[in-house]
Parts: sequence; structure tokens; C-alpha cells
Amino acid sequence: MTNPPGRLDLAQVCRHVRPLDQAAMAAARQRQAELTKPPGSLGRLERLSVQIAGITGQARPRLQQPAVFVMAADHGVTAEGVSAYPMQVTRQMVENFARGGAAINVLARRAGARVVVVDVGVASDLPPDLPIRHRKVAHGTANFARGPAMSAGQAEAAIQVGLDVVADEVANGLDVVCLGEMGIGNTTAASAIVAALCGLPAAAVTGRGTGIDQATWERKVAVIERGLAQHGLRANDPECGLAQHGLHANEPLDVLARVGGFEIAGLVGVTLAAAAARRPVVVDGFIATAAALVASELCPLVRGYLIAAHRSVEIGHAAALERLELEPLLALDLRLGEGTGAALALPIIDAALGVLSEMATFAEAGVAGPEPTLHTPAN
Amino acid sequence: MTNPPGRLDLAQVCRHVRPLDQAAMAAARQRQAELTKPPGSLGRLERLSVQIAGITGQARPRLQQPAVFVMAADHGVTAEGVSAYPMQVTRQMVENFARGGAAINVLARRAGARVVVVDVGVASDLPPDLPIRHRKVAHGTANFARGPAMSAGQAEAAIQVGLDVVADEVANGLDVVCLGEMGIGNTTAASAIVAALCGLPAAAVTGRGTGIDQATWERKVAVIERGLAQHGLRANDPECGLAQHGLHANEPLDVLARVGGFEIAGLVGVTLAAAAARRPVVVDGFIATAAALVASELCPLVRGYLIAAHRSVEIGHAAALERLELEPLLALDLRLGEGTGAALALPIIDAALGVLSEMATFAEAGVAGPEPTLHTPAN
Repeated sequence: MTNPPGRLDLAQVCRHVRPLDQAAMAAARQRQAELTKPPGSLGRLERLSVQIAGITGQARPRLQQPAVFVMAADHGVTAEGVSAYPMQVTRQMVENFARGGAAINVLARRAGARVVVVDVGVASDLPPDLPIRHRKVAHGTANFARGPAMSAGQAEAAIQVGLDVVADEVANGLDVVCLGEMGIGNTTAASAIVAALCGLPAAAVTGRGTGIDQATWERKVAVIERGLAQHGLRANDPECGLAQHGLHANEPLDVLARVGGFEIAGLVGVTLAAAAARRPVVVDGFIATAAALVASELCPLVRGYLIAAHRSVEIGHAAALERLELEPLLALDLRLGEGTGAALALPIIDAALGVLSEMATFAEAGVAGPEPTLHTPAN
Repeated sequence: MTNPPGRLDLAQVCRHVRPLDQAAMAAARQRQAELTKPPGSLGRLERLSVQIAGITGQARPRLQQPAVFVMAADHGVTAEGVSAYPMQVTRQMVENFARGGAAINVLARRAGARVVVVDVGVASDLPPDLPIRHRKVAHGTANFARGPAMSAGQAEAAIQVGLDVVADEVANGLDVVCLGEMGIGNTTAASAIVAALCGLPAAAVTGRGTGIDQATWERKVAVIERGLAQHGLRANDPECGLAQHGLHANEPLDVLARVGGFEIAGLVGVTLAAAAARRPVVVDGFIATAAALVASELCPLVRGYLIAAHRSVEIGHAAALERLELEPLLALDLRLGEGTGAALALPIIDAALGVLSEMATFAEAGVAGPEPTLHTPAN
């Protein structure tokens, strides 16, 4: 079930990502101004509707077929004792997703979203009849504290998995993409990626993951620092990362391969494919945002397609969001992943589009606008 | 269509509001700890599910029949030129609600919520066949800058309207209440209430409402200060309001009558009735929160039944929320009212209860818990 190394042409994929449609955005903005409410009074909902008009190229877009892509993989770096949970939990949770018992199943069901579970690199062999996408690139990454997590070819193969699963779903009508993931140890990989791409020290972007104690947190930070140093990814500029210094455009891919994870690489592919297909990408928490960051460093136009669902408790999330200039819709103290925050944001997105399409205009409703004589009190 | 002055026994209503059910909360908390996720990783959703267990007295509650109560009324204080919109917009928007063209209609539809529109005091006569609840107490309040907005009897009558409409809906199965309102000028009334009850200067709790300019804002602040001074409601203690100083318990009612509005008084009744019936009260923005504040000053146990939906752009909202010790679920830069923020919070609440009831436990799913050997790295 192991894929051959991919022959991915990333530049080709990136060329398919186009700027947002300014005409559709202008039309949506105009309509928002005519609806029966004070201009701007629906705040984020209005701006969201304009962004999605730009993404889809439709002045009054509707999104009816969401899917949450839950990419799962294991991490060799767990050998360093960086997580509160044993590695087999990744596999057990994949089985839980397949049975519908996990948080993401409950939340996706409510939002009317499909859950597409993908084994991109779980350490153990999963039953072939398990109703998931079987696209294992390898049996987990190598321990990045001792060598590269994956080869460049494996990173490309994992990105290709993301491209493929989105292509399949788009063919079936998918119109909005949620990023989700499962992988014991993957906050360690995400912290390393964000540290490397934002030029921040590991301690500034490393949190408690599933709930580790102080001693384990200190070990986690040390492991990430060691890994970054060993791979030559230490950046000292606190303002920003490698790309701003005009380094070669494949640098993000190198970071991904050296310290990333297969599920994160898979989500890079999901993000690129969704943006290329003009589908909004609802970014979940810290790990998903690390993937979105890699995708937008590879292809800056991706950024316009991203909707940040929520602000995670993980401290590195803020740095990644800031780098992407994204303001999350929700702040509910979540730190679960799986795509749970993204699924929770779907009703907000749906509401924003409902307002744009279904509300009456001032003219239709016969409602008066602001008073022209505003500056003269009536008495 | 004008009601006689009510003979409301508020003490009797308040006696029906009981403390939250601790046993149901403990059971919900226990179950949250057993679900297949790191403990606490669903943050606000977990705490919300525990609160609703306490409100309903059920360890695994479900809320299936939400309603948004949109109380509408006019404000005599608009004669002072404090709003960007003319008074007739209140009536026009009530007609828009009845036709289903307003933002609250769109958002409530998505959340599966009924919209119950109530004329508590619109200035003009509405067509009797308009499909709303016709419970007009008077044709708008008097101008509180020149005298009391309403009599004590009118305030009680308007509260009674809220009690009545909730009782009717509860009889039909209503299990969660959203507060909504419409009334040109009602941010002026809400600012005056919050200033009086929180002991804050008008400028600290007065915002731009539907979108007034600087000159109008200054006039609005001056009008509120003048009204508060005239009614002897000026409080200088920045820490808090009248109740903390041991003033008589009917003080909030006096504030409500002197500077409030009929729709705000109606929402006080809605809040009290919902809490007495053990239904969660989803509080919308600034005006709804001012009503919830009056209700909980009248009856402190009400506070446990409140769920703050969102943080409004209106600056007085923060003061009212702080006084109520409520942390909103959403912050979407809304400033519309109508119950729109409350309707947007319903899917979050539903998701929280879905997680509690539908997720698999560690035992059911065969998923391992945290490692006992956490402090010993595996290598």
C-alpha cells in the first residue's frame, strides 16, 4: 500500500490558483449595502460573504456540500516522549472515525459535512476493509530529532494524496473544504514547522498538545530545537521566516520534509487543490494552520482562499495565524484538532451566505434608510 | 389594544427560579471526562454542555425547539435626535420580520428556530392581521430626557407580556429561548440602563448604535447624562451599581421604568419566565444584555440560565457582560440586534450537546488513555 515517490509538479499546481474574483466581490459588497440592516452591522458575516464571492466567482454563492478531510499519520518523534498518549491512539482514533464515534463525526453530522478519513502514514497496517481512503505513504515518519522525518519524494507523495482526494470529492460536488487531522505527536511537528517558517524560537510556538506536564513540555521544546538545529532550519529573525529573505521557493517543502508529518503534507495538498478548484478552505487549529502556512508559502495566492475557523489554545497557533494574516471566526478554547473547529465554523459560513442571498433589500421591504436630516434634532 | 397596568408579583416569579441542578452537572462533567478526546480539549463546548445539564436537570440534555423572541417598541427619546434612522423604521422592520425578509429570519431558519415577533410598544398601529403577537402596552415610551419613559405599571405590564409569550411557547414545547429586539433609539435606553445599574458614566457605555456620527454621539451621551441626572440615577461608584450598595430590590425596576423601553421590559419578562421554566436563555447583544442585567438584578439566580451569544461592537456591552460575569461564545463584530447573534450561537450550543450525548467513550471505542509512563521517554 506504499506509494512510489511522487513526480509532483508543484509549480503547475500553483499556476492553477488564481486571484479572487474582484467583480463578484464588488457585486456582493454592493448587495450587502442594500440589505435591510445598517451598513456593516453584520460585521464578520458580511466580510466573509464577500470573500466567498471572490473565491467562487459568484455574486451570491451557496455552499451545499462540505467535506472534512481528516488526514491521519504517525510521527517518529514520539520516540522522544513528547506526547501524553501512546502512538497506537492514532490508529484507534482512525477506527473511531470510521465508526462515527469521534467528536468530528458528531460535529460534521450537524453541519451536514462528509468526513473523508485518509491514512497517509499511520504506523500500523489498518484493515483494508475499513471505510477510509487507504493512501499510506509510509509507516509513520522517521524521528526528526535524529534525521529527516521523510524524504523529499515522500513529502511530494503525501501532498499528491491531498491533491487526489480533493479531486475525487470535487468530481462528486464538493464545494467547501475543511482541514482536519489525527496524529499522536503532530503538535511537535507543527511547532517545528511554524518555528522554521516564522523564524521563532521553539518555546514561543510550542504548547501542551493533548495535555503534557511541564517536564514533558521542556523535553518537547528541546527536541524541536535540536531538530531545527540539526536540519539547519534555525532562524533568528523574530519578524519572519525564510521566504521573506528571498530564499528559494522550495524552502517550505524542505521544512515540511525535514520536520513535518505525512498528514500535514497531505493537508498541504488538500489546501492547494481546493484553492485551485476555487473552493474555500476552512482551516482548523494549529496543525491545520501549519499546513495552510506551508501551502501559502509555496503559493501565496492560496491565502485568499483560507478561512480561519477558530483560535486554538496552542500558543503557536497565534504566530501561524499572524503570519497568514488571518483572524479566526471562533475562539472556544479548543485544542482537539480532527477538524472540529472547522466543522463548528461551517454554520457561521452558511449563515453569512444566507444573509447575502436571502435577506430583503431596503427597496423590496419598503424600509427607510438613514435620515438625511441626521444633524438636526427633531425638537 | 393597550393593556391595563399589570398586577405583577415579581417576587413570586423570582421564587420559581431555582439553582442549577448540581447532580446533572456532575454527571455531565463525568461523561465529558470519558469521551474519546483529551480531557478539556473541547473547551467552551464542554463547559456549555455542563451548564445546560444544570439548567435542564438532565445529564444528557437535548434542545430541539428554539425560539427567538423579537420584542419591538419605540422610544420617545428619539425626539432628541439620537439615532441615524427615523422612528418609522421600527414598524417597517416589524413588517419585514413578519414577511421573513430580515436578517433574523434568515439566521433563525438556518438554526431551526421559530421567530416570535411581539409588538410591545410600537408607536404606530400595526395591521391586526399581521402575523405577530399584538401586545402593545403603549404607543412608544415617553422621552426619558424630559420625564419617565414609562410608569411603573407600564413597566410591569411589559414584563408581563414577556412572561405570557414564553408561557405560551413553553406549552408548545419550546426548550431554548433567544432574546431579540427591534426599536429605533433602543441603544440609548440600553446605555442609560447599563450606566445606572453599573454606576458608569454615559460616555463609557454609549456607542454608535446603527451608525451615528461624532456630533450625534456627543448629543446621545449628553441626553443620557441629562436623563440619568433628572431621574436621580447618576451613580459615581465606578465599581458597580445600586444593588451592591444594598439599595432596595425594586431599584432595577425603577431604572427600567425611568429610562428603559417596552421591548427591553418585555425581554426582562422573557428572561425571568425562561429561567423559571428551566430553559437556557441565549442573550443577544447590547440591548438584550441590558434586559438580562435587569432580570438578574431582580433575581440573581437568573444568571446561571444565561448564555452570552456574542460580543457586540457596542462599547457598553462589555460593561454589562462583565457585571453579569458572562463570556460570550462569539465575537463577529455584530451590531444589528434582532436576536441575530443569539441565532448564530444556536448551532454551537447544539454542537456542545451533540458531543456530550453522541460521542463514544474511551471504553466503547477501545481507545487508550494517556500513558502512565509519561515521564519516561521511550528511548
